[in-house]
Amino acid sequence: MAVEQLTADEREKALAALPEWTLREDGLAIIRAFKFRDFNAAWGFMSRVALLAETHDHHPEWSNVYNRVEITLTTHEAGGLSLRDVAMAKAIDALA
Amino acid sequence: MAVEQLTADEREKALAALPEWTLREDGLAIIRAFKFRDFNAAWGFMSRVALLAETHDHHPEWSNVYNRVEITLTTHEAGGLSLRDVAMAKAIDALA
Repeated sequence: MAVEQLTADEREKALAALPEWTLREDGLAIIRAFKFRDFNAAWGFMSRVALLAETHDHHPEWSNVYNRVEITLTTHEAGGLSLRDVAMAKAIDALA
Repeated sequence: MAVEQLTADEREKALAALPEWTLREDGLAIIRAFKFRDFNAAWGFMSRVALLAETHDHHPEWSNVYNRVEITLTTHEAGGLSLRDVAMAKAIDALA
């Protein structure tokens, strides 16, 4: 099943429900930054996100520097944000 | 014990022994990019590097996009490359 990009209206509505996430400047991705006690805690969180990513078959673009993690969600095959990103963001929020 | 930045000579010698790593443009870090079969394989590798990082008490700056991992090593308290980066790079090479 093709994954479609959210319309501007859908995007606005989705972002309103994801207050911790920021729309990337180009409007094609959402970003959230996390800060933990130390690397051990950051890695624990990343491990849980990795399992989510496999479950959702939707993988983040992410980076880690010691206790900081930044996650970017976008849907390449949709050329921007899709419902898959919204679902993944909500699942990540439920962990954090 | 204070961690000292490598001298230019030491850096050159270290890089010669780490052919897979590239010196960052500013000369303060080394970078290596890895590509795996899929996210599962990339994550497996990252998990092993995470354990190394805790063992060495030296943590990478790294990013992951699906099957790709990019690792940057630098020593903040030395203001650039130190022997800790060289040791960590060798340990990572031994995994890859």
